[in-house]
Amino acid sequence: MSQRRYEVVPIGWVESPLVDRAEAPRQGDEGAPPAWLVFEPEMADAIRDLSVGDQIIVISWLDRASRDVLSTHPRGDVDRPLSGVFSTRSPDRPNPIGLHRVRILAREGLRILVSELEALDRTPILDVKPVLDPIAER
Amino acid sequence: MSQRRYEVVPIGWVESPLVDRAEAPRQGDEGAPPAWLVFEPEMADAIRDLSVGDQIIVISWLDRASRDVLSTHPRGDVDRPLSGVFSTRSPDRPNPIGLHRVRILAREGLRILVSELEALDRTPILDVKPVLDPIAER
Repeated sequence: MSQRRYEVVPIGWVESPLVDRAEAPRQGDEGAPPAWLVFEPEMADAIRDLSVGDQIIVISWLDRASRDVLSTHPRGDVDRPLSGVFSTRSPDRPNPIGLHRVRILAREGLRILVSELEALDRTPILDVKPVLDPIAER
Repeated sequence: MSQRRYEVVPIGWVESPLVDRAEAPRQGDEGAPPAWLVFEPEMADAIRDLSVGDQIIVISWLDRASRDVLSTHPRGDVDRPLSGVFSTRSPDRPNPIGLHRVRILAREGLRILVSELEALDRTPILDVKPVLDPIAER
């Protein structure tokens, strides 16, 4: 079964002032700037109900990550012992998928401005999901 | 840019009593059973620090979903108006990536038992990440 592969197709891209991985915050709430999500025109129907104020999870493809890393020092701190990557949020992992919980600040057609996104400029976007509140109605 | 494609490689597979999509709960906390995550042998180093009690996010590839759906009735309820899929948790979406927040119940080598997983039997696993508590130390 290990021979199976699946293909992901970007639905859009990040536009951000962050261009250098060394300068990017490790998590969105550690000082990341707002950023635009720019969707492909064919996704217009899929994004039509995303509204200002919504809390969403953006799923990105961290295209500048290394895919052959299996253990790492958490937060790049060599004073911390090596951990298996599935116990860390390092972008370097077999499938470099990023999860970003953000809030929608503005919309202009296919462009959606979100808060505190630590993804680099031109990072591909794979999916957007609503945040599920276990208490609220689904 | 829309011509780019990326390839994801399963790091393991779900073993679950759930085999029929029509019977599966829509979310893990709606009665989903425990399930085993069975990792590929080459992932041993990456999973080595996953421990009983950990809260993790399992990222799956919902391989039985339809990828050409852009709007849907939330929770399959035709009495609810059509929504853009990025405002729903429907498995049918351009990149059918599943997010599952679960707790580790047991470990046996490459096999990890987790709570309340609504993914179907043999669903590919793409990634595992620790749950980040915004208050706790990172």
